[in-house]
Amino acid sequence: MKPTSDTPRHSEYRLRRRVHFYEADPAGIVHFSWFSRYMEEAEHALWREAGLSIAPLASDIAFPRVAMTFDFRRPLRFEDEFMVHIRIAAIGRASMRYTCVVSRDGQEVAIGSLTIACVRRAEDASMQAVPIPDDIRARFEVADEAGA
Amino acid sequence: MKPTSDTPRHSEYRLRRRVHFYEADPAGIVHFSWFSRYMEEAEHALWREAGLSIAPLASDIAFPRVAMTFDFRRPLRFEDEFMVHIRIAAIGRASMRYTCVVSRDGQEVAIGSLTIACVRRAEDASMQAVPIPDDIRARFEVADEAGA
Amino acid sequence: MKPTSDTPRHSEYRLRRRVHFYEADPAGIVHFSWFSRYMEEAEHALWREAGLSIAPLASDIAFPRVAMTFDFRRPLRFEDEFMVHIRIAAIGRASMRYTCVVSRDGQEVAIGSLTIACVRRAEDASMQAVPIPDDIRARFEVADEAGA
Amino acid sequence: MKPTSDTPRHSEYRLRRRVHFYEADPAGIVHFSWFSRYMEEAEHALWREAGLSIAPLASDIAFPRVAMTFDFRRPLRFEDEFMVHIRIAAIGRASMRYTCVVSRDGQEVAIGSLTIACVRRAEDASMQAVPIPDDIRARFEVADEAGA
Repeated sequence: MKPTSDTPRHSEYRLRRRVHFYEADPAGIVHFSWFSRYMEEAEHALWREAGLSIAPLASDIAFPRVAMTFDFRRPLRFEDEFMVHIRIAAIGRASMRYTCVVSRDGQEVAIGSLTIACVRRAEDASMQAVPIPDDIRARFEVADEAGA
Repeated sequence: MKPTSDTPRHSEYRLRRRVHFYEADPAGIVHFSWFSRYMEEAEHALWREAGLSIAPLASDIAFPRVAMTFDFRRPLRFEDEFMVHIRIAAIGRASMRYTCVVSRDGQEVAIGSLTIACVRRAEDASMQAVPIPDDIRARFEVADEAGA
Repeated sequence: MKPTSDTPRHSEYRLRRRVHFYEADPAGIVHFSWFSRYMEEAEHALWREAGLSIAPLASDIAFPRVAMTFDFRRPLRFEDEFMVHIRIAAIGRASMRYTCVVSRDGQEVAIGSLTIACVRRAEDASMQAVPIPDDIRARFEVADEAGA
Repeated sequence: MKPTSDTPRHSEYRLRRRVHFYEADPAGIVHFSWFSRYMEEAEHALWREAGLSIAPLASDIAFPRVAMTFDFRRPLRFEDEFMVHIRIAAIGRASMRYTCVVSRDGQEVAIGSLTIACVRRAEDASMQAVPIPDDIRARFEVADEAGA
């Protein structure tokens, strides 16, 4: 499906999620490594809402992660319901940056950011930075409220 | 490196391991999903000792898992040191079966089994069962003491 | 909330799920270790539907896993939608057994089973088998169609 | 074991590690969520070398993670051997900060940082910031070469 000038552009996604037992650690709280996965789940849901898969089965274009940050404010526990709100903060020639807020009952749990690059994978599995293809770029825009 | 009639055959491997914090759950014990990973770590170490990778970068032959069992006897906790002893129980035309004992201080923690198939992956990502290639088969043999 | 003779009993749960990127491996398919997690997610959803948490914050009763099996028939890939159908196959004095079918588009992907025990945890973190408490037992029953 | 003025202080740790199959994703490279786990594995090894466990079985003192960053430079693949070099960058009254370099064959793969807080857990599972206990503080010092 080719995007046209009328194609709606997507800039954010709110993912509702519940903590699985295996995501919590012996301290009884979600292990911090899971927040990068929560953020990515929301990112991929944003791409699906935009009519895209971030990793189609037969594609030589890929979007490896190049930077990530997270600040943790409150713990999440088994069976807690929470929200992952991801927003596009910047779209560059060959990269995108997201900001992300994880919250529970309206209270901030964690704040993160993620930068991804656009690359072409060669036969030998090496990667080279390339511009984001136009039919992908045309579906996204920077969110109004997203801080840089 | 082609195997010859003198190539030693491998039938078992003992992997020493320590429990990572993120492997234990809110009950303070290793989440049961990790045992299948421990068993696979030992399997891949067995293949490396036999001079092989179970998943070389450019290969259309793969070894998907087709069956697994585990009985859990005792818990493992954060920083526990344990042993994963994997043995080849059967080698078929297009499949292999392992048995596995996880222990700590000589006491059985868990007992598992794993059956893998040999497949060829087509361009469209579909898989078809094929005989285990001779140069792989030549490096393995059934362990003496492994129960069927 | 105490169960009464009118409390509906629960025997099965159908969980709808989508494959996350981090659940698939370099072969492009869901790593087999995830199926035990999918099964447990469905189990915990069954308990929630019955008005229970399988691991309340302050409880000395716990339900460790004592046995698991899985047969794998077809692969799952990134973004596949699938169903996890868990059913209670047996309820003993101090244990329960589930069977589980994972399917996609009506086709069987994997078939599993899980046995859990009921234990009391002592101060020193040791566990002792105890009968399933009545207020938990009263909420469950064996599913009609579940094979032993 | 009480530390004395002669107790050696620890400031860094080098962890050697190999990529497990289940750590790599459909792009064939280690999923970025694993780097926070690699960093934590090295941190816990540093604490063990200092004669400590970061999470003893019966302790009301805990060290939750409050901030994390990672920049990713090169991919890691299945069976790659790599090094995780963690260094203490700062020790505060109630927090510590680490920097971390992941490398393979001398080439930088990823650069991270991690800040942890010292808290006391109450009966109700709430956490309150407290000073790092003296017998823990006495075992660590800031690494010479660690940038702030």
